[in-house]
Amino acid sequence: MPAYPRTARPALIIGSVAIDRVATPDAQSENILGGAASYAAIAASYFAPARLVGVVGGDFPKKFLQLYRKHGIDLAGLQVDPAARTFFWSGRYHENFAGRDTLEIQLNAFEHFSPQLPPAYLDTPFVMLGAIQPALQLHVLDQLPRGKNRPFVIADTFDLWINTARPELDRLLKRVDLLVINEDESLLLTGQRNLILAGHALRKMGPRAVVLKKGAHGSLLFHPGGFFALPAYPVTRLTDPTGAGDSYAGAITGYLASVNRTDFPAVKKAVACATACASLTVESFSVHRLSSAGRKTIDARLRELQALTRF
Amino acid sequence: MPAYPRTARPALIIGSVAIDRVATPDAQSENILGGAASYAAIAASYFAPARLVGVVGGDFPKKFLQLYRKHGIDLAGLQVDPAARTFFWSGRYHENFAGRDTLEIQLNAFEHFSPQLPPAYLDTPFVMLGAIQPALQLHVLDQLPRGKNRPFVIADTFDLWINTARPELDRLLKRVDLLVINEDESLLLTGQRNLILAGHALRKMGPRAVVLKKGAHGSLLFHPGGFFALPAYPVTRLTDPTGAGDSYAGAITGYLASVNRTDFPAVKKAVACATACASLTVESFSVHRLSSAGRKTIDARLRELQALTRF
Repeated sequence: MPAYPRTARPALIIGSVAIDRVATPDAQSENILGGAASYAAIAASYFAPARLVGVVGGDFPKKFLQLYRKHGIDLAGLQVDPAARTFFWSGRYHENFAGRDTLEIQLNAFEHFSPQLPPAYLDTPFVMLGAIQPALQLHVLDQLPRGKNRPFVIADTFDLWINTARPELDRLLKRVDLLVINEDESLLLTGQRNLILAGHALRKMGPRAVVLKKGAHGSLLFHPGGFFALPAYPVTRLTDPTGAGDSYAGAITGYLASVNRTDFPAVKKAVACATACASLTVESFSVHRLSSAGRKTIDARLRELQALTRF
Repeated sequence: MPAYPRTARPALIIGSVAIDRVATPDAQSENILGGAASYAAIAASYFAPARLVGVVGGDFPKKFLQLYRKHGIDLAGLQVDPAARTFFWSGRYHENFAGRDTLEIQLNAFEHFSPQLPPAYLDTPFVMLGAIQPALQLHVLDQLPRGKNRPFVIADTFDLWINTARPELDRLLKRVDLLVINEDESLLLTGQRNLILAGHALRKMGPRAVVLKKGAHGSLLFHPGGFFALPAYPVTRLTDPTGAGDSYAGAITGYLASVNRTDFPAVKKAVACATACASLTVESFSVHRLSSAGRKTIDARLRELQALTRF
């Protein structure tokens, strides 16, 4: 890994770690590394030292641990439940990636997961809460400092929690600094189809800033400092969209930690870093392309994004 | 109208002129000025002197002619068929503007429309072919100079012609410099869901450059000089989307005529002008907002577009 800038602070990633098996219209994967925390921590690690909190079973392959270590990811927060197997997810994408079905889900070690932060993590200034149950996301926040030393909190969620855990989610949103959410989830939460009005409505629910992800149509950022819109990176070889949103949120967290800032220009740049990382994620199964691409490829895509939006 | 820049050449707009009656989820219009040529010519007139070729009936209200004249639009090419009525279209938009139904269509004077260019128009260097039958679009091109003095041709089309007049459309595309097309039409023409690959496929059909319109998700430009992506202007008061695409194509034509250039930077700026004009069009029924906004409002939106894409 390249040396991090002098400003860089650690980025803490909390979320699922999984073994996935994915079928796309074009190909079928082996058992591969998955889970929101895997994608997010690897993306974050390009910008700042990443810390991971999650759980795996005794069967978790050593090569996946080695992959985390290659990215300098601190695994003190990775619980190992030797008696259990690792969370397993298998899914199949529809023609044209127009949707996906879950074929099999085995929660295994993840079923009773309760994220516990090692004492050394309690001072982490940038924290990403992956899309686990809102009650567990709140449980993480309860372990972290409040007041002046509270961290900057980036949160993800998904439709299941919007539908089944709305009271906890509403409580969570009041404690989130930056919410990262996609179009469908935004509609479900706000009932608002106009994305600009939806962004304003989401901010009224608590988060100081909101990033609305539109997949191939790019991103919208609603920040106290202003409004920002960024097209997607022009991907032409979509292989597997799994993990795109996770690496997106992880890159935002990592970039903000790297500059130790959360002002409008910093979050705009973070959205661009996220766009670049997500574009790499979808070009392979698992984290292969994201992990192997290297910082130079990310920087090249950042320059491309800058060029293709200039007029 | 403001004085045009010294570089400005005329912009010729060919298309339908109509009386519309529109119902949206929120409101119902009177009989209002409609038709692709109306929206396009008024948008173009903000940038360059516009010339209009179309047909109306003896019933066409004087106030609509006055509106064209207010924008300095040259009406030498507007045929009047005193024995006929003007093309009439009535439509109703679905909830959330998710689609629309045509309630009534009376072709009237438009039924036997054959665009004839006045001799004084034959030297127009920038020509927009609105989405009339491809055979009529070709008929216009047959009247214009070929070779060194041929104009720069901007063309629009729509799904009906893709489905019913494909051979003529294919012949047309080989003679078009800049095709302006939306996502659905692009999919119908190319079968390609990846918008980047679709843009490349469309250019292979003939047009040197392609603008792919994505509504609230903005635009993609595929030009020999490079790729450009622009988000939509953040509209929060969508009133009536009718004519958005027409004013978009008209603004492109007018801007290119105003600078008398068609290189990559010029077409990028033209796409931004088009985005600004379309955002005004959808904020009212008919051309009301587009016509009353004035160049200062368009320039303000151009600056906003520049600011909201910068990082």
